[in-house]
Amino acid sequence: MRLRNKPWAQDKIEEHPGIVVINPEEWKGKWAEQFNNNNPIHIEVGTGKGQFITEMSKLHPNVNYIGIERQKSIVVSAIDKIKESGQKNVRMINVNAVELNQYFAENEVHRVYLNFSDPWPKNRHEKRRLSHDSFLESYENVLIPNGEIHMKTDNQGLFEYSLHSFSKYGMVLNNVSLDLHKSGIEGNIMTEYEEKFSEKGNRIYRCEAVYRNG
Amino acid sequence: MRLRNKPWAQDKIEEHPGIVVINPEEWKGKWAEQFNNNNPIHIEVGTGKGQFITEMSKLHPNVNYIGIERQKSIVVSAIDKIKESGQKNVRMINVNAVELNQYFAENEVHRVYLNFSDPWPKNRHEKRRLSHDSFLESYENVLIPNGEIHMKTDNQGLFEYSLHSFSKYGMVLNNVSLDLHKSGIEGNIMTEYEEKFSEKGNRIYRCEAVYRNG
Ligand SMILES: C[S@@+](CC[C@H](N)C(=O)[O-])C[C@H]1O[C@@H](n2cnc3c(N)ncnc32)[C@H](O)[C@@H]1O
Ligand SMILES: C[S@@+](CC[C@H](N)C(=O)[O-])C[C@H]1O[C@@H](n2cnc3c(N)ncnc32)[C@H](O)[C@@H]1O
Repeated sequence: MRLRNKPWAQDKIEEHPGIVVINPEEWKGKWAEQFNNNNPIHIEVGTGKGQFITEMSKLHPNVNYIGIERQKSIVVSAIDKIKESGQKNVRMINVNAVELNQYFAENEVHRVYLNFSDPWPKNRHEKRRLSHDSFLESYENVLIPNGEIHMKTDNQGLFEYSLHSFSKYGMVLNNVSLDLHKSGIEGNIMTEYEEKFSEKGNRIYRCEAVYRNG
Repeated sequence: MRLRNKPWAQDKIEEHPGIVVINPEEWKGKWAEQFNNNNPIHIEVGTGKGQFITEMSKLHPNVNYIGIERQKSIVVSAIDKIKESGQKNVRMINVNAVELNQYFAENEVHRVYLNFSDPWPKNRHEKRRLSHDSFLESYENVLIPNGEIHMKTDNQGLFEYSLHSFSKYGMVLNNVSLDLHKSGIEGNIMTEYEEKFSEKGNRIYRCEAVYRNG
C-alpha cells in the first residue's frame, strides 16, 4: 500500500470526481464521452492553480479543456477555481505529463498549452523541460495533424531552449512575441505566474509551434 | 550611359580594386583565386561601414570575408576601415544581395552573417527583409551543406519574423540569445549599429539558423 503524504489533498480530489477525473487512463480515446460532446480538446500541461484554463473555458465554451497537474496540493487550488466558475467544459487530471500517452489516444487533442513551465536550467535536467523532444514526441502522438503548442513563459533560458527544440523537431514557429504585454495582443488570458512575473517587470515571451505532419 | 549620382564615391571605389572587387560576377566560382587560398568564405549581407568584417578578419585570419553592401557612399567608409587594418582576407562587393546567385557558385560560401538588417516593418515590404524565404533560398544556393546564417539585431519585430521564417524554411535555430550582451558570451564583435543601439539600452537578439540539407 502506498503512503499518502497529503491525505487532505487526496481526500479533496476524491470528493470532486466531476472536476478531477479519476483513473484518467480509462478515458483514453473516450474523452468526448467524458464531456458529452465532440468539441475540440485543448490540454494544458503543468496547469498550476487553474486560472488559465478556467478563464479560457469561459471565453471558449465550445472547447473542452483538460489541465494536467502532478502536484496534488496544487490540483486542490484548481478545484476551487473550476468549481466556483461552474464551467462544465473543463477537467483536471492529477498525473505526470511524462505518461501523457497513457491518457490520450492519437488525434484526440487539438492543442497543447505550456504556460510558465518549470525551466530546469541545468543542462543535465534538459530532459525534464516540457519542450524537450521526448515531450514533443508525446504531444505529437496525441495531437491532430498540424497540431499546435502554444507556449508562454517569462524565463529567457527556457524560451531560447524551446525555440531551438521546436525548430530542431521540424516545427514552424508562428506569432512569436518577445514582449507579449507590449505587443498590443488582445484577449490574452493571464496565468497566475504571468501575473506575478509581469508585475515584477519581466517580459513575457510567447510563441506557437506547429507540427509539420499534415 | 548611366548617370552616376555619387561620382566621388564611385571614384574612390574604383581606386581600391584590391578592396572592392570590380565585376564580382566574374569571380563567381573562383573566389578562392581572388584570395589566393582555399580558406572558407564567410559573407556579410548588408555590411554597412565594415567594422564587423574588418574585426572578424583580424580575429580569424584563416577565414575569407566578403562584405556585400549596395550603397556606394557606405562602401566608401568600409574601404577606409579595411585599408587601415591592412587585412588581406577581406573584400567588399558593391551589389544588391537580391542578385547574390550571380556572384557566388554552389558550395562557395561557408557562412552568412546578417547584422542589423533593415527591418522593413510593413507587411507589404516583407519580401525585402533579408530573412525572407526568397533570400533564404538564395543563401542556400551558395552555401555548403548544413550551412549557417548568423543573425544579430536589436529589432524585435525583425527577429520575431526571422524566427518564423527560418523555422518555416525548415532550419534549426541554435544558440538563440534574447539578450546577447547579458548572456556572458565571449568574443562578440560589435557592429556599428550594435554599438549605437546597445548604448541606447536596446537588447541585442542573436541566433544561428542552420540549413537541413546535409
Ligand atoms: C511554474 S508552475 C506554472 C503554473 C501555471 N501554468 C502558471 O502559469 O501559473 C509549473 C507547474 O507545472 C507542474 N508540472 C511540472 N512538470 C510537470 C509534469 N511533468 N507533469 C505534470 N505537471 C507538471 C508543476 O507541478 C507546477 O504546478
Ligand atoms: C541597418 S544597416 C546595418 C549595417 C551593419 N550591418 C551594422 O550592423 O552596423 C543595413 C545595411 O544593409 C544594406 N543593405 C540593405 N539591403 C541590402 C541589399 N539587398 N543588398 C546589399 N546591401 C543591403 C544597407 O545599405 C545598409 O547599409
